[in-house]
Amino acid sequence: MDSTKCFRIEKDAQIPFNNKVDYCIGTGRMGLALQKEYQEQLALVQEEIGFSHIRGHGLFSDDMAIYQEYTDENGKKHAEYNFTYLDLVMDSYLKLNIRPFLELGFMPDKMASGEQTVFYWKGNVTPPASYDAWCELVQATLRHLMERYGEEEVVTWPIEVWNEPNLPGFWKDADMEEYFKLFARTFAAIKEVDSRFRVGGPAICGVEDEKWIRMFMEFCRKESIPVDFVTRHHYTTELPEKDGHYGYAKLREPEEGFANLQTTRDIVDSFEEFKGMEIHITEFNTSYIPNCPLHDTNRNAAYIARQLSRLGDVNESYSYWTFGDIFEELGVPFTPFHGGFGLVANGGIPKPTFWTFKFFKDLQGTCVYRSDEAVIVKREDGSYRGIVWNMTLEGTGEDICRTYQLPIEGKECFILTKTVDEATCNPLKLWHAMGEPSSLSEEQKKLLKEAAKPFVEADRAAVQDGCAQVNITARENGVVYFEVKAVEDKSDRGYCYKRVIGK
Amino acid sequence: MDSTKCFRIEKDAQIPFNNKVDYCIGTGRMGLALQKEYQEQLALVQEEIGFSHIRGHGLFSDDMAIYQEYTDENGKKHAEYNFTYLDLVMDSYLKLNIRPFLELGFMPDKMASGEQTVFYWKGNVTPPASYDAWCELVQATLRHLMERYGEEEVVTWPIEVWNEPNLPGFWKDADMEEYFKLFARTFAAIKEVDSRFRVGGPAICGVEDEKWIRMFMEFCRKESIPVDFVTRHHYTTELPEKDGHYGYAKLREPEEGFANLQTTRDIVDSFEEFKGMEIHITEFNTSYIPNCPLHDTNRNAAYIARQLSRLGDVNESYSYWTFGDIFEELGVPFTPFHGGFGLVANGGIPKPTFWTFKFFKDLQGTCVYRSDEAVIVKREDGSYRGIVWNMTLEGTGEDICRTYQLPIEGKECFILTKTVDEATCNPLKLWHAMGEPSSLSEEQKKLLKEAAKPFVEADRAAVQDGCAQVNITARENGVVYFEVKAVEDKSDRGYCYKRVIGK
Amino acid sequence: MDSTKCFRIEKDAQIPFNNKVDYCIGTGRMGLALQKEYQEQLALVQEEIGFSHIRGHGLFSDDMAIYQEYTDENGKKHAEYNFTYLDLVMDSYLKLNIRPFLELGFMPDKMASGEQTVFYWKGNVTPPASYDAWCELVQATLRHLMERYGEEEVVTWPIEVWNEPNLPGFWKDADMEEYFKLFARTFAAIKEVDSRFRVGGPAICGVEDEKWIRMFMEFCRKESIPVDFVTRHHYTTELPEKDGHYGYAKLREPEEGFANLQTTRDIVDSFEEFKGMEIHITEFNTSYIPNCPLHDTNRNAAYIARQLSRLGDVNESYSYWTFGDIFEELGVPFTPFHGGFGLVANGGIPKPTFWTFKFFKDLQGTCVYRSDEAVIVKREDGSYRGIVWNMTLEGTGEDICRTYQLPIEGKECFILTKTVDEATCNPLKLWHAMGEPSSLSEEQKKLLKEAAKPFVEADRAAVQDGCAQVNITARENGVVYFEVKAVEDKSDRGYCYKRVIGK
Amino acid sequence: MDSTKCFRIEKDAQIPFNNKVDYCIGTGRMGLALQKEYQEQLALVQEEIGFSHIRGHGLFSDDMAIYQEYTDENGKKHAEYNFTYLDLVMDSYLKLNIRPFLELGFMPDKMASGEQTVFYWKGNVTPPASYDAWCELVQATLRHLMERYGEEEVVTWPIEVWNEPNLPGFWKDADMEEYFKLFARTFAAIKEVDSRFRVGGPAICGVEDEKWIRMFMEFCRKESIPVDFVTRHHYTTELPEKDGHYGYAKLREPEEGFANLQTTRDIVDSFEEFKGMEIHITEFNTSYIPNCPLHDTNRNAAYIARQLSRLGDVNESYSYWTFGDIFEELGVPFTPFHGGFGLVANGGIPKPTFWTFKFFKDLQGTCVYRSDEAVIVKREDGSYRGIVWNMTLEGTGEDICRTYQLPIEGKECFILTKTVDEATCNPLKLWHAMGEPSSLSEEQKKLLKEAAKPFVEADRAAVQDGCAQVNITARENGVVYFEVKAVEDKSDRGYCYKRVIGK
Repeated sequence: MDSTKCFRIEKDAQIPFNNKVDYCIGTGRMGLALQKEYQEQLALVQEEIGFSHIRGHGLFSDDMAIYQEYTDENGKKHAEYNFTYLDLVMDSYLKLNIRPFLELGFMPDKMASGEQTVFYWKGNVTPPASYDAWCELVQATLRHLMERYGEEEVVTWPIEVWNEPNLPGFWKDADMEEYFKLFARTFAAIKEVDSRFRVGGPAICGVEDEKWIRMFMEFCRKESIPVDFVTRHHYTTELPEKDGHYGYAKLREPEEGFANLQTTRDIVDSFEEFKGMEIHITEFNTSYIPNCPLHDTNRNAAYIARQLSRLGDVNESYSYWTFGDIFEELGVPFTPFHGGFGLVANGGIPKPTFWTFKFFKDLQGTCVYRSDEAVIVKREDGSYRGIVWNMTLEGTGEDICRTYQLPIEGKECFILTKTVDEATCNPLKLWHAMGEPSSLSEEQKKLLKEAAKPFVEADRAAVQDGCAQVNITARENGVVYFEVKAVEDKSDRGYCYKRVIGK
Repeated sequence: MDSTKCFRIEKDAQIPFNNKVDYCIGTGRMGLALQKEYQEQLALVQEEIGFSHIRGHGLFSDDMAIYQEYTDENGKKHAEYNFTYLDLVMDSYLKLNIRPFLELGFMPDKMASGEQTVFYWKGNVTPPASYDAWCELVQATLRHLMERYGEEEVVTWPIEVWNEPNLPGFWKDADMEEYFKLFARTFAAIKEVDSRFRVGGPAICGVEDEKWIRMFMEFCRKESIPVDFVTRHHYTTELPEKDGHYGYAKLREPEEGFANLQTTRDIVDSFEEFKGMEIHITEFNTSYIPNCPLHDTNRNAAYIARQLSRLGDVNESYSYWTFGDIFEELGVPFTPFHGGFGLVANGGIPKPTFWTFKFFKDLQGTCVYRSDEAVIVKREDGSYRGIVWNMTLEGTGEDICRTYQLPIEGKECFILTKTVDEATCNPLKLWHAMGEPSSLSEEQKKLLKEAAKPFVEADRAAVQDGCAQVNITARENGVVYFEVKAVEDKSDRGYCYKRVIGK
Repeated sequence: MDSTKCFRIEKDAQIPFNNKVDYCIGTGRMGLALQKEYQEQLALVQEEIGFSHIRGHGLFSDDMAIYQEYTDENGKKHAEYNFTYLDLVMDSYLKLNIRPFLELGFMPDKMASGEQTVFYWKGNVTPPASYDAWCELVQATLRHLMERYGEEEVVTWPIEVWNEPNLPGFWKDADMEEYFKLFARTFAAIKEVDSRFRVGGPAICGVEDEKWIRMFMEFCRKESIPVDFVTRHHYTTELPEKDGHYGYAKLREPEEGFANLQTTRDIVDSFEEFKGMEIHITEFNTSYIPNCPLHDTNRNAAYIARQLSRLGDVNESYSYWTFGDIFEELGVPFTPFHGGFGLVANGGIPKPTFWTFKFFKDLQGTCVYRSDEAVIVKREDGSYRGIVWNMTLEGTGEDICRTYQLPIEGKECFILTKTVDEATCNPLKLWHAMGEPSSLSEEQKKLLKEAAKPFVEADRAAVQDGCAQVNITARENGVVYFEVKAVEDKSDRGYCYKRVIGK
Repeated sequence: MDSTKCFRIEKDAQIPFNNKVDYCIGTGRMGLALQKEYQEQLALVQEEIGFSHIRGHGLFSDDMAIYQEYTDENGKKHAEYNFTYLDLVMDSYLKLNIRPFLELGFMPDKMASGEQTVFYWKGNVTPPASYDAWCELVQATLRHLMERYGEEEVVTWPIEVWNEPNLPGFWKDADMEEYFKLFARTFAAIKEVDSRFRVGGPAICGVEDEKWIRMFMEFCRKESIPVDFVTRHHYTTELPEKDGHYGYAKLREPEEGFANLQTTRDIVDSFEEFKGMEIHITEFNTSYIPNCPLHDTNRNAAYIARQLSRLGDVNESYSYWTFGDIFEELGVPFTPFHGGFGLVANGGIPKPTFWTFKFFKDLQGTCVYRSDEAVIVKREDGSYRGIVWNMTLEGTGEDICRTYQLPIEGKECFILTKTVDEATCNPLKLWHAMGEPSSLSEEQKKLLKEAAKPFVEADRAAVQDGCAQVNITARENGVVYFEVKAVEDKSDRGYCYKRVIGK
């Protein structure tokens, strides 16, 4: 690979790039949102990145305590709904300026038709014993939310029916027919509450996905269900190898995954009435297991940069699974760096991938350049922002050096870079150097946070031939963010920087 | 200069090193302590470094509003004291866990014998029209403080009489005899309130300092004044060259200053009854002007490291002038980086020298190595902390590379470094690159703060021959802090770091 | 006086009531806005009440340090502007969601034509030595603000030229002609920067006010100055009697003041081209001295309630002088309760009048009742809010008992009252009982704050004949706020309140 | 009943009163301590009251996730311990300056010998399948705590073995012999870790309590177990009547309960070697169900005042069950005021009983008066603090009026009262008036908090015959706190309060 290249950007360049990095983010089950540490991690994520929506499982699971029953004096059973915890969770989300992308599931134990559960925390994955009871629960919940938070607000919250019904672990027997029944009944129940609600499915992962998508669209066509959007998941590693508490997984070539997403797009578009319909990736990450140490690495950060540069191409949004590491699907993690899905490790430490999201969030503007290793946008004020990554599936040991020539007005420009790579922003390495402690002291947390910041550099340079010359070196698994803008010197009377630094 | 060297530390090494880095810090005049930005800067300093005492001018200046007069119905004038602002200031100090090193001065306008003032903020520098009135003011103030904050607490606050009376700008005609009178009267008045108070002087700077110190000690001997400590100042640049709002000053060889301090020590010790008496440097910095851009540089940080490694040798304490840049002696600064004395630039941005103090603060333990470029201490738990600096008066362009072999138990050690140099922690450069804006936006402040943190690196290494091998590279004007401790691997079941990073 | 009365409100009642309670609030001089305690008091005011604008003196006074001069190498003098403190102040205002109502004054010492000053803090009140220099200062300041805070934002900030030029203490010789010159020149200079700025005057107090208003309007007519609004002040006590640090002043009948304001309105309206022009009362309070203990009393709170119910009748806004007690016009206050203008006493303690403002702020809706002792509004949701006050110029000892019958839907209503009177919310009394300490401990401050809250009562009552029956008792100098709304019982299964309380 | 009485306190009065109000407080199960709302309620409690210890169930229950098992490659099962959540909980406790009173229980599901559970949250109440495994779990947990928080700290945390084994719901079959086995094994295991740990039991409630205490002491005697303290519970209502989600319970005469506690004391003291041994009431409240609306009332507050005045007589400490209403023993509460045990209602609203604790916390000093309706203490500075309550089992409608003559120095005294009764501090009534909403808006929470503060009054009075005359009126179910101290007038020059208020 020729590792040094130069690119000249044309003055009026305009490249397609659908940046929906901040539309949605995943979360551990809703009951965990009651936790203090969860909220602190989410607050950190919102402060630095700022997502619009949040999606996770467990709205109707028993720890949220919504569905209750009692028997009256005549021995008749009645449903009653408890929204105490739901209010706490939703209040906390809205206070952090994030809204739910509602996933309806799993089944309350008392309403379930069976006892099959998923996860350490035992989400019941069987169909409802009574679809009427289920629909009443859904309606009561939505009506409560509308009363508390306002109709205009709540009808904007997207709703997805269930999670990964194509897996027998998440939906009894992966029974497609039963899922379609659930979808149809739920869809109708929601629209009865307010037709403005937008409802989608089938929330599948990549197992028999083509078949499921096709059958789902056909079902909607047949039943004349005006589904509002389609949802699916997107993971990009091979099967993990297990060792003790951990799983080790190899990354797949990104193009394989992009091709798979294109297929979904094509299937949906092949239905005339659904052509161009929104597809939301309601979960994506590299590995699909919450104990894959890869998630904590710089390699993950660079790989995800590539994903974020492409996922908007055929999808409306894509929700990274998950914002933080308060997560219990395989039990409570033993250590802070345990390979959880989160952007933030327990203890409030941003992982490298956190910054990939931050950088893409800051990448608003007109795209002027996009490749497999970089995206650059131009902003209204004439300045530029870009990201360069050096993604590797395994190690290469090579830096990539790029020069971008960006048309700019003025004589001088300000060039800022923020670098996240194994040398500059690698809390995992620090934690390893510390001896991999499972219990972090306050001092250790502070140190890890200090080591988990991008490395900032800035300089002023002359504009040459009407272009800023931006030289970026991205080391292996590095992600480099840059800003370039014209700068005018406003030195105060008598101030001379060169004299100050004695050079 | 041979820039690569190796040093082997002996197991039981014990080197003299009197680290009083955190005893006292300077401040702009007391009235400024009412300001919000001042308090925020001080809070930052206290949170990261944590000084015990704070010393500055202006306790009795008119903006503190303590001394007031009124005329009764018979036309007789009376003094009255207003402690409203004093309480606000002292409350805020104590809340930040810092105590005043009280400097008594300047003269309230109404009590003054003349109209001569110093500074943009016009501190009156003439003797009192009535020494009785002055003594009553001092006593009333101390009694008020004792009532509000408790006797046991307040008697521990050191008291210094006036500031730099050896300069005619700070004390009318630099009248030595008049100062001695002020000292004697004030000393007696304070001891009358409570003999436990500790009182010192003559707070001189380096002009005719030998004469002043000698005469002061002789005066105390002659008048049998049991002075509690001696105070002086210490600045280490040549005369500045002025240009517009700024002054450019060259650094002097540190040894010149140390020799000067030794002379003071020798003079004091030459008086039998004062031999070994505490000498407090109640002000020190490189330049003595608050508009010397040098203060904001990495060069300053490295130079001050050398100072901090030596100033305790013949002095009890040394108070850097000042903690922050809310300061008005030459007027209100026009820009955030204007060469103020502070460890913190306006906007709450730590300067490189801030970290020199932080590093020395963390250097508690038994000194095992000290040179002109490094100090290393050993802690009770067997770990080490050290600082290496690459001080230059002007540029050299050379790195220094050092290896320290530190005796340690165990098989592996954890090595942490924090680097502050022109490449890694240089907010001044970023500000310059931005175009030297005088008004910082919130976004600019945030970015400057991000660029004003030490660069953290960590690794785990094998212990060789019972020694940790610590390799430190300090670039020009760089200050590198390190920690070394034995580490035991506590990898969780199945966790293999090498496999995680694919190496 | 018959102290018990009943009022029936008609269903479609609609009474004129121009509630501009939150448009503007006064402040001590701008330089004090740098202080921490000032900002804390303002934050409290904004959190509970929330004003839109803030107006005070001293923008151009020397402690703000804006106007500076230097002499170049050729000995020529130049102006330069320092916006460091202005930025700090404006940043802090906008962060608290309040904008300046800019008052242009006083004169920078270096620009002044004389040495006459006003106040302890010495605001220079002489005309500029050069009107050109003045106009450049005004323009530079506005342009800086526009650059920092955005044009669209800054042009909405009203601008008033000088303060009380009709008093010789505030404007040399109360020279009307000179003021008109200042006004005309300043008006033109501002409009040159941006014609959208709204500029008014003459900011007079009640001395020769008729003459000044008339002459000002005539001047504007004659010079064809399209003045944007007229400003004046409004104080309502007799001349104070002085004793020591304090002044004691008697309240005047409110109607006298209202008549005076009507006269101003009539004069302005008598000019065809200015008819209906906005009149802003840019200062009002009971007494016009900052050491009038009346300000701290419940009597003041009740009197101000009456004012707030009427001041909008012929004026666009009315700005209480001032929000807090960080204020130095007569020097630094000696004690927390010293009769300062503020809504908040030093130490962060709300005075009774604070709550009068809070109550009127909550009085948004359609006015359905207004009298000399009460105002009631109806809100869109059918609920009511009202305030009843028992104003006395001196003591009466009598309660007033009122019943309001308010048309409401439903069977039951929720009635809430908040009472501020001498028995329920009287921190002054508590402070007196404590021995009138000048230095408050943290514990004392906490206690005073606890005693400075309205007394809250609530009940549920049956709706009778379609009306809520609201019985209000207002004790002497009391202010009672109430809310009434229909309530539906939503008792949880098995919950019976009567059984709970055993009644 | 004669409701007006006068009491003269003798100068040197000294009455026994063992005030241990702040030693310990109860909590919902430990897993709930991860919640944000839980922590906020605890922070409120600690800020205002400040307890030293906290005790609750569920340390070893599965949601804390401590006990885990895995099977190795040879198919052998191993225990492993996960302290992630334990650290989070303990960190949060210590940050709030509270320490655990460790209760060892319930049984981890995987270690249990049976499937019987207690509560909605399903605590397993069966003995361990292996006592060795149990002892290892206990030891591993203590060793982890000692490593993280320091040995010296952790050995001061009292340890109690299990909870209410005398109830078959809490310990399978209430099997006494099995409990004694558990106690003996656990006791030995703990002392093996560190003999300084203090360990007690049998943590029984009032069912067959005499028998259990006697048998427990005999068991310890027989087995020569040097038990460190005895624990029991104390509830004082009749059996509740159930209706829907709630239970209504009548209060019992306090003396019945005190007699019961005396019996326990007598039994323990009847064992020579255990005579005078500490007895800790590790739970007490009025009703023992978490859905008894009585807990939210002023009646409860007055009743608890009586308890707090007596419980120290024969016990070392007494821990109110519980600090807050995040609690799930009967499921998640449907409404904020649901009769939970807590001092704080959900939403962060202090209940009346909260203030009873606050008042007793402030009652430090030498007791000079104690009766069934009041306690008064004298402090070192000569001031007094007292509490008067008007406890009723059912309504009486009568106020009690008391005068206390308290010897005091000086001419005037400051008298402060804080009143919590149905008229002044009754958030339950406000909530009822609002319509008993289950979902509180932020505005409603704010209002409820405003209505949940004691009513503060203060006055200054002349000292008569060397005594302060303190007149207290306590309305039905009211609790009145007072402070009395000598006061010296320090009026500022010219300040005359009488003139200020015009009286």
